[in-house]
Amino acid sequence: MAPVKNGRLIFNEVPEGYPVPGKTTVYDDTQTIDVENVPLNGGFLVKVLVLSIDPYMRGRMKLSEGSYINSFKLGEPVSNFGVGVVLRSENSDVKAGDHVYGVISFEEYIIFPKLEGVEILTNDANIPWSYYVGVAGMPGMTSYAGWKEFSKAKKGETVFVSTGAGPVGATVVQLAKRDGLKVIASAGSDAKVEFLKEIGVDVPFNYKTTSTKDILTKEGGIDVYWDNVGGEVLDAALDAAHTQARFIECGMITGYNDSEKFAIKNIFSVIPKAITISGCAVYLLAPKYTAEFRREVPALIASGELKVLEHRTEGLEKAGHALVDVLTGKNHGKSVVIVADS
Amino acid sequence: MAPVKNGRLIFNEVPEGYPVPGKTTVYDDTQTIDVENVPLNGGFLVKVLVLSIDPYMRGRMKLSEGSYINSFKLGEPVSNFGVGVVLRSENSDVKAGDHVYGVISFEEYIIFPKLEGVEILTNDANIPWSYYVGVAGMPGMTSYAGWKEFSKAKKGETVFVSTGAGPVGATVVQLAKRDGLKVIASAGSDAKVEFLKEIGVDVPFNYKTTSTKDILTKEGGIDVYWDNVGGEVLDAALDAAHTQARFIECGMITGYNDSEKFAIKNIFSVIPKAITISGCAVYLLAPKYTAEFRREVPALIASGELKVLEHRTEGLEKAGHALVDVLTGKNHGKSVVIVADS
Repeated sequence: MAPVKNGRLIFNEVPEGYPVPGKTTVYDDTQTIDVENVPLNGGFLVKVLVLSIDPYMRGRMKLSEGSYINSFKLGEPVSNFGVGVVLRSENSDVKAGDHVYGVISFEEYIIFPKLEGVEILTNDANIPWSYYVGVAGMPGMTSYAGWKEFSKAKKGETVFVSTGAGPVGATVVQLAKRDGLKVIASAGSDAKVEFLKEIGVDVPFNYKTTSTKDILTKEGGIDVYWDNVGGEVLDAALDAAHTQARFIECGMITGYNDSEKFAIKNIFSVIPKAITISGCAVYLLAPKYTAEFRREVPALIASGELKVLEHRTEGLEKAGHALVDVLTGKNHGKSVVIVADS
Repeated sequence: MAPVKNGRLIFNEVPEGYPVPGKTTVYDDTQTIDVENVPLNGGFLVKVLVLSIDPYMRGRMKLSEGSYINSFKLGEPVSNFGVGVVLRSENSDVKAGDHVYGVISFEEYIIFPKLEGVEILTNDANIPWSYYVGVAGMPGMTSYAGWKEFSKAKKGETVFVSTGAGPVGATVVQLAKRDGLKVIASAGSDAKVEFLKEIGVDVPFNYKTTSTKDILTKEGGIDVYWDNVGGEVLDAALDAAHTQARFIECGMITGYNDSEKFAIKNIFSVIPKAITISGCAVYLLAPKYTAEFRREVPALIASGELKVLEHRTEGLEKAGHALVDVLTGKNHGKSVVIVADS
């Protein structure tokens, strides 16, 4: 077989605000690969199937080491969680047909010199492979571990989940409902609000047309806040918090493109209200929760008890646009790029 | 005996910035009391000995119910923790010569209709009564309970204590040293920095002449932050925090007179660093820690293991000035007003 195109999404320039496809990220289709004959030197060749698109990728588009994950390197492909299928292998631990999962670079084909950075993925629950970068993967793990570790949820309490229709938020919503809480959740479009209803949110609202502050006041305040947003919404939640409320800080999408927006004014409330604010860094929680997560969550998805909404973009060449959509809230469900069907 | 003056400190006007003695608080000496003959109607008469002056009193000088403790009432005396001695009693649970402790109003003599709002205070450790509004009272309890509940201190870690020479801060410093931590602490004058050295602070500094940010960077960051200050200092501490640092929010004196200064910019750090921020509301922790606190702390003071520094103001008529001094950092040690010696 002749060499085939090996498309890549390159980090080309540090964005000032939102990333600009074709400028800050560039899709490069000049490379080719001879899939059948390329030397593996003891490694294995993976065909990438699906890549995850997440807001925090914006944080890696920097030159400095300011973020918690290393910045992307200029001139090289960006990377994120993904799943691929092994085409050929010279490694005895890996065989053709195996699926692998891990943080991988945005390319159609990758040669791994050894089994490092990715792991063999089994799929006993027989759910779509793409779910393993969503609710069955890092975003779902974030929800699962963060909720179990920090929520101290008690039946009858009220939780507010911002970005409730996203993969992390929607999973939190469903875990909270399973624990018997009243759930208030926000999303940025009426279609997303419909999804919030489908997953059992008691008080779903569109934050673009309804004031978060008004809703939280009207509903009598909150005991738990799952924050994907930061900024003014975090301030409103501090204002509406009950005594001894628990705040789980998972993301602050408000500030990713404008650091001034990280500023909050109501932090003083934590003292009189004895609020606890916990930063949810999934990499620190994963060791404690991975085994039970893998045992429970794919099975809950397969049985339909945990609902999943996926926003699929077909083709690696559109990954740059998919990232902008995630940052501007245009996606409806967990954003994934389908690089190849199988 | 003829009636004697019964001076009172009246809340006269809501301050805009700092309170103004003679304007926002007014000392009123027009009332008299006939100590020997005033009818008690089954209650008891207390001569006030000492009153505590604390920064949070500024927060009570409001019309709204925005703060966690009720606002002072205009035209009535302000109140705070104090100790008094019983002169006469018609209550069988209280006898002349007993000392009582509680939140009491700023007057020289008070008739209590029943034993409510104050409690009989014993003093087995035989320390000065004034200490019971300081390190042996609410401020010390704040340090003791907050430290035990939230610090998760491990030997060899580093803690930063802002306002380290105040009664809360100095007690935290000494508890941290007992737990084997390296202690960085700030104060607002060279005299206070000397006191920080006396109580064992490893890195004492004057925040008015030395940059907090520079010190925290130079010392390699922090694992625990005991915050009495808020604002920019809290931002600097977030910047210097290690992964999984614990922040104990006890006060934000920076913002008490200017709410814009509560704003912080580095809150995002809690996510990548998995920081936990806990609001320390002593009233919620007291039930859990009161017994051990009373058993341990007065004895530690008596033996000299816990050092106490007191800033005494003689005479209730100067209480308004004492409050301004506390808010502007002019006090050197726990501020108390000595209303009467015995």
